[in-house]
Amino acid sequence: MDVMKRRRRIRERLREVGASVFLIQDLDTIRYLTGFSGSDALILVAGEESSGDIFLCDSRYTAQARQEIRQCTIREYSRKLDGIREALEVMEAQDMAVEAHSITLAFFEKIREGLPQVSLVPIHRNISDIRVLKEASELALIREAVRVASESFLEMRRRVAVGMKERELAVELECAMRRRGSQRVSFDPIVASGERSALPHGAAGERKLGPGELVVVDFGAVVNGYNSDETCMLVVGRSSPEQEKIHGIVLEAQNRAIDAIRPGIALAKIDAIARDFIREAGYGAYFGHGLGHGVGINVHEEPRLAPDVEGTVEEGMVFTVEPGIYIPGWGGVRLEHMVLVTSAGCEKLTYLPKTLISC
Amino acid sequence: MDVMKRRRRIRERLREVGASVFLIQDLDTIRYLTGFSGSDALILVAGEESSGDIFLCDSRYTAQARQEIRQCTIREYSRKLDGIREALEVMEAQDMAVEAHSITLAFFEKIREGLPQVSLVPIHRNISDIRVLKEASELALIREAVRVASESFLEMRRRVAVGMKERELAVELECAMRRRGSQRVSFDPIVASGERSALPHGAAGERKLGPGELVVVDFGAVVNGYNSDETCMLVVGRSSPEQEKIHGIVLEAQNRAIDAIRPGIALAKIDAIARDFIREAGYGAYFGHGLGHGVGINVHEEPRLAPDVEGTVEEGMVFTVEPGIYIPGWGGVRLEHMVLVTSAGCEKLTYLPKTLISC
Repeated sequence: MDVMKRRRRIRERLREVGASVFLIQDLDTIRYLTGFSGSDALILVAGEESSGDIFLCDSRYTAQARQEIRQCTIREYSRKLDGIREALEVMEAQDMAVEAHSITLAFFEKIREGLPQVSLVPIHRNISDIRVLKEASELALIREAVRVASESFLEMRRRVAVGMKERELAVELECAMRRRGSQRVSFDPIVASGERSALPHGAAGERKLGPGELVVVDFGAVVNGYNSDETCMLVVGRSSPEQEKIHGIVLEAQNRAIDAIRPGIALAKIDAIARDFIREAGYGAYFGHGLGHGVGINVHEEPRLAPDVEGTVEEGMVFTVEPGIYIPGWGGVRLEHMVLVTSAGCEKLTYLPKTLISC
Repeated sequence: MDVMKRRRRIRERLREVGASVFLIQDLDTIRYLTGFSGSDALILVAGEESSGDIFLCDSRYTAQARQEIRQCTIREYSRKLDGIREALEVMEAQDMAVEAHSITLAFFEKIREGLPQVSLVPIHRNISDIRVLKEASELALIREAVRVASESFLEMRRRVAVGMKERELAVELECAMRRRGSQRVSFDPIVASGERSALPHGAAGERKLGPGELVVVDFGAVVNGYNSDETCMLVVGRSSPEQEKIHGIVLEAQNRAIDAIRPGIALAKIDAIARDFIREAGYGAYFGHGLGHGVGINVHEEPRLAPDVEGTVEEGMVFTVEPGIYIPGWGGVRLEHMVLVTSAGCEKLTYLPKTLISC
């Protein structure tokens, strides 16, 4: 990865607002800009590349930072505020941009009071969108995460049986992913069966799978910091006509949305294509969440696909397309693919079937 | 759990600052105050119990909230800001306290601009400290998490051998914990061997265990939302006199700190007892982090034990005592217990040996 090229996008933002240094706290962005994979650090990116960027951490992370980070001065602090003060002195900066979406009010006020000589410039545009277009090296990791997750799902699927608990199924899936090299799970797998499948974010619980029941399985692996995210539908035994009807609507909504993806189309339009189809089929009240979200270093990142979103699809974006119908008391169906936007349309990164998978 | 009793502590804070409603965003605190275990919600706690508290979530979590939450009106929003506006109208509140430590600058400003009629009162005292004294029901869950983690560690230990990768060891430990009922891992287990044991937060990697090497294993389980956290030291085969010397210093520092714990003593004093001992033994430069932290719904919560901390030990607190010595290029030793403060001293909640555990 070319971290200097990535940091150039931060320097551009600084020039837009006329600030000389950007304090970045968001760990995903820090990883993107430096390679650091630890869980507590700061980076100060200078407006001028020649000024040199400064990475700040406490003693727990200094050795790790020395191993992982390139093209950045590493400074250890005992107190964060002192670390920032000293770094700004080294950088000869009198002002500092901060990301309004990640800095807490308390830390903002602490800096303002502790460093009264520094003028703070809150940036409201989310800087995580610098990560929105994936590089080839990132795509390779995402594809590997998808592969690990998919193979693990297929292994887990063979063990599904009536009477198995949702939690047991989740554990099988997680352990299979971990053994195949997933660093962790992208998120606690959602395994929701029977009427619990109507919970869009149903944590895997003690409920036992019954015959003929639907099971939503939403899961992802992590490879070298990059995530996958996919949802498949299991049916324990044979599906009912009603299950097939609901599934068919969700699948058609997904296919229509995916078919419409191409550079230049509005993100909100992709959402609308799926949403309108579900509404016209009579289930509009049962699809309450957005259609999708970006996936990369963070499993939920820019862009969002939802009715109120601005912006357009761009080549190189990676995002999910995950329509659903959730009927309280009956159950639900969600189907989720990850796609990569290409010059002419999109490529599905996930390849597990989006049928009702019988087990 | 008596959520109304817990919320009374929030109402007391409101009275201290003269505000009528508290907007709480921190998910751990929301869980503590309502029982909700989802990952996106808000709660508005009224200053007067009779006014009624309002829980806000989007459609993904409404069904789950109805199942989990008691003694709270549940309202669904499409946009957070609209949800807050409408709830404040229902509550007839003209002002609202917000937690400065958890609200982002962007969200604070969004509320200020979107609800100009509401006067915002930033609270700087961390409200997560309302969770600092554990109830019997919470202790039962923490003990169960410790049990799950301990048994899993003992199972994993039997498999440790020369040539095994750190990552494989971490996977064994995680899968053992998950199978025993841990909902997830408290955090990605730290498994750091050989010279990597000098990394206080060394993620488990591809390094293979060599004969005579130290391995730091820092891990925890989660039961019904409550965490455990413990660090044990393995030695692959036989330990060296130097390893034993460093281990002996860390163990003595830990024992002295634990022996000093009792209600009324300063938290910073407990830290100082361990830190001074390590410094006097000549290794002060190699112990850079704080001595410990609270454990509960969050694996890192109040109180902190560190040199700059105010406050005293109180009966009912649960925290870690985890001194370490980290020598770059050589390796490190950390020993971590969790303790519960009792009326006369403390009880160790973790029970795995803090010797160099030979495998």
